[in-house]
This record gives sequence, structure tokens and C-alpha cells, in this order.
Amino acid sequence: MEINVLTITILYIIGISAEGMTGALAAGRHKMDLFGVIFIALVTAIGGGSIRDVLLGHYPLTWVKHPEYIILICFCALVATKIPRIVTQLERLFLTLDAIGLVVFSILGAQIAIDQNHGFIIAIAGAVITGVFGGILRDILCARIPLVFQKEIYAGIAIIAGAIYYTLVIWLEFNTLICTLATLFIGVIARLLAIKYQWSLPIFSYNEEK
Amino acid sequence: MEINVLTITILYIIGISAEGMTGALAAGRHKMDLFGVIFIALVTAIGGGSIRDVLLGHYPLTWVKHPEYIILICFCALVATKIPRIVTQLERLFLTLDAIGLVVFSILGAQIAIDQNHGFIIAIAGAVITGVFGGILRDILCARIPLVFQKEIYAGIAIIAGAIYYTLVIWLEFNTLICTLATLFIGVIARLLAIKYQWSLPIFSYNEEK
Amino acid sequence: MEINVLTITILYIIGISAEGMTGALAAGRHKMDLFGVIFIALVTAIGGGSIRDVLLGHYPLTWVKHPEYIILICFCALVATKIPRIVTQLERLFLTLDAIGLVVFSILGAQIAIDQNHGFIIAIAGAVITGVFGGILRDILCARIPLVFQKEIYAGIAIIAGAIYYTLVIWLEFNTLICTLATLFIGVIARLLAIKYQWSLPIFSYNEEK
Repeated sequence: MEINVLTITILYIIGISAEGMTGALAAGRHKMDLFGVIFIALVTAIGGGSIRDVLLGHYPLTWVKHPEYIILICFCALVATKIPRIVTQLERLFLTLDAIGLVVFSILGAQIAIDQNHGFIIAIAGAVITGVFGGILRDILCARIPLVFQKEIYAGIAIIAGAIYYTLVIWLEFNTLICTLATLFIGVIARLLAIKYQWSLPIFSYNEEK
Repeated sequence: MEINVLTITILYIIGISAEGMTGALAAGRHKMDLFGVIFIALVTAIGGGSIRDVLLGHYPLTWVKHPEYIILICFCALVATKIPRIVTQLERLFLTLDAIGLVVFSILGAQIAIDQNHGFIIAIAGAVITGVFGGILRDILCARIPLVFQKEIYAGIAIIAGAIYYTLVIWLEFNTLICTLATLFIGVIARLLAIKYQWSLPIFSYNEEK
Repeated sequence: MEINVLTITILYIIGISAEGMTGALAAGRHKMDLFGVIFIALVTAIGGGSIRDVLLGHYPLTWVKHPEYIILICFCALVATKIPRIVTQLERLFLTLDAIGLVVFSILGAQIAIDQNHGFIIAIAGAVITGVFGGILRDILCARIPLVFQKEIYAGIAIIAGAIYYTLVIWLEFNTLICTLATLFIGVIARLLAIKYQWSLPIFSYNEEK
């Protein structure tokens, strides 16, 4: 159990660091000042978990309990503004870190729903909200339609990760560490394949004049 | 009392189904993928109630307690993407269902405020938040100024419904079922008249250079 | 202590009145109807405090406990729509009232974090969220990138106010009234100087094609 918590914590730190840096770059594309950059980095990294906790009544929020994560994300955002080109050139690395973040966030969301004795559907809802809401808030603050609604299967990975994790933990009753690692492995591979082959959900376009 | 709960539940299910379908069509007008369509349908149908519950500290949220509503709305959203033209042609039917949803949401919001021993103003606030916030969130996610701020009297119906319901329940101490049906009757008629005669609130336009 | 609460309450009322009026004018620039104007005035004035309370699990929210503030803000919004030109001509007065509001909101946010036994970082987070989130929500509802991310040092004042207040209250253990007045004095002066000399944070603009 201890080693599972340690693993999840390390992966979570990797995830929020990567999300903070990519959030900062998104802010840079909209010519924001230092506060805007840091704010959007924070929202991207910990916004999804905050929304999940508020909706599920799960207090205190992670960053309220661990303010050191705020400092870490501010630091990552500042680093990203200093070396934007390097971050962009390391695109593959960041896509992988982002994939890890997405799946770890999903696992955490599902686990919190499980801790609250919710069933399969709310576990998946917890996974999706944690995984994608940070990006949705980032895009709302940049006044654009959220990318996750239009891009390669991103939310789908959160749904799959939540479903696999719940199945392994609750129905197959595996050891939590094994569940975490198995979900992580499948989720990250699926995400990277989705990017490589540009898998996407069907687009629903409806434009009839009303 | 039992029959009142049953009535409200049936009307609530009609309301979220209609909101889910129209939310899905709104997403289709912005070329979103399947996840975007379902997400926006969910936000439109249950976003208002979620915001109300979070602001009033009313846990657990309805959809957390009844995940079957999530399934229902997903199903309605998918149906709407298959038959968008039919939904559009049934415009009158959907406007009526939407009007029922608006008034039922308002009644539920006012009732929850009453259950928490709040007074007239918070009952109306609960009605308005439940009634219109779903549409506001839908429009924010579509990156446009919320329609309810610019269209025919919509929020006004939620205010009137909340005020009538509070008056009947608290000041006149009528039977709850009677209060529900009377509010529903007046609210839906008022909404349909507002659409027919395009009643609207005065627009405040202010453009002086600052 | 009593006099401190009175002072804070009076300043808070000044703050929400000014925010309500400027929020209403912002709505007027986007041609909204009466409901939109009042809704945006309310969100601008009490949205930041609401988000803070929800994130910190601090119930009931201020306006739920004191619905009379809702009436006050509605009234201020209506007044602003009647005399928009006068409000604009009194720009200096309103900038000063807005500065007072910003600093008082920040003090309240920091104080609530302190009441909950949080440390320095969460006190500053409470100050910033209370001080700037109203304006952020207003701009999201007007479908534009939040001004606080691009303008003269605004959020910076909330951070400074939170830091000074926390230092005076917790580390130097001054009398609360003195802490409030000292923070208010420094914060408002700093804000007015920031406007006068157009102090701003460095802009991070990053536009390399991805």
C-alpha cells in the first residue's frame, strides 16, 4: 500500500509539472502577463482535481492540503516561459508526460469515487472530470472552444482508464499497485497510439439554419 | 407527498432529456466530437443543478446519487445526433419540453433552498441558478456570450416560478403537489407566451469610448 | 474586534457596490438584457468570494447568509444602467472604490484561510481568488480573455495585500484592526500608483507554430 501511494505521488508530481508547463505555453500563445501565465498553469494542472473534489464534496482539496504543489507548478510555469522553444522541441517527451498525467489523474479520480463508495459510472465520471477538466478550464480562460471536444481521443482515454481501474480494483480485486501500473501501462500506450494514428471520435456537425 | 415526488421526478426526467437533446444539437453547431456532444449535453441538463448544490453545500449532487440520469442524458444526446433534423422539425414540441424543464428546475431549486430554511431571496436565487446555469455553461463551453443574457425573457420565468412556488408553499401553506402543479402551469404558459410574442427585457447597450 | 468587523463590513459594502456598478457597465458594452446586466453585476461583485468559499469548503456562502447583499448589488446595477455616463465620468472615483474593493476582498480571503488554520501560501491563494475571480468570471461570461491576465498589475496587488496581512496578523501578531488598516492603506496606494504609472508584469508572448 505504501509503495502504491509513493508511486502515485511521483506520477502525480510528474503529471502536474508537465501540465503546468504546457498550460504556461498555451497562455503565452495568448499574450498574457506573468500572472496570467501562472494562473493558467495552475488551472491546467490542478483545476480538474479541484472541480472533481468540489462536485464530490471531497474536502480539503489536494492543493489546500499540500500548498507545495502550488509552488512546484509556479516554478514549472516560470521555467516554461524561459525555455519555450526547448519545451516545444521536446514535444514527444511532453506528449508522453502529458499522457502519464492524464492517466494518473484518471486513476486518482476513480480511486476517490471508490473511496466514497460510488459505483462504476461515478468512478468513470471522477476519472473524466479529473483528467480533462484542467484542459477545459484552460481553454475557457483563453476564450476558445475546448480542444478536448474536437481533438484525437483524449477524454476517451480517461474513460478507458477509469473503467479498467475500477474493473481491476472492485470486480477482480487485484492489489492496488498492480491495478495502478496496469491501468497506467494500457492508458499511456493507448494515448500515444491515438496521437500517432490520429484516432478520433466521429465529429457531429450540424448546421441547418434554425 | 409520495405522488408529489413522483410527479416532480417524471417532470425532471422529461426536462433533462429535452435539455440533453438540445444541448447535443448546440454542440453539433460547433463541430464537436462525440465526447464534446455528450459532455455539453450533460452540462446543459445537469450543470445548473450541480452549481446550485455546490453553492448551497447540498451534497451529494443529484447525478452522483442517481448515476442512471447520466446514462439517460448520454442516450438522449446520441439519439439527437442521429435525428437532428427531426428534432429541429419538432421545434414546438422541444420548446414546450424545454419550458417544462425550466419551470421544474426552478421549482426544485426553490424547494432545496426551502429545505435548507432559507428565505424568499435565496429561494429565487436557487430557482434561477438551477433554471438557467445549464444553458450558461453550455454557451461558455461553446465560447459565446450566453443566450439567456440576450434573448426573450427566460431567466425571468425562473424568477417568477421561484417566487410563485415560495409564496404558495411558505406564505399560503398549500399542499406541495398543488404548489408544484400551479407553478408549472403558470410558468410554462408564461414561457410559451414569451416565445410567441417575443417578450424581452429591455436591452442595456453602452458603448461610449472609455 | 467589534470595530474591526464594522470597518471591514463597511469597506466590503463599498467594494461590492463599486464592483456591481462596473460589472453592469461591462455587460452594457456587450448589449445584454436586464437579467444579463444584473447577473454579471452579481458575478463580478460576489463571484470571487463564492469560488473561494467553495474551494475552501467555507459554508454557508456570504450572500446565502446575507441575501440583503444581493438586493444591494441589483440596485447598484440598475443605478449604473440609468447613469452610465456619470459613472464613466467619475472614473477616478470608481477606480479608487475598485481598489478599495480589491484590497478588502483580499484581506477577507486571507482572513478566512487564517481562520481555517491554513498557512502563508493558502492565505495568499485565498486573497487572490477573492480579489480577482469576480473579474475573471465577468470576462468569461462576456466571452473574452480575462483582463486581469493582460492589464496593469492587478492580481499582484491581491498577492501583496494577502502577504502583508498574513505577516502582520500571524508573524507580527498585531491587532486585527491595525492589520486591516495598514494593508488597506498600502494596497490601495500601490494599486493607484500602478494605474497612474501603468506598472505591468512582463508579458509572455509565444507564437511559434507548433
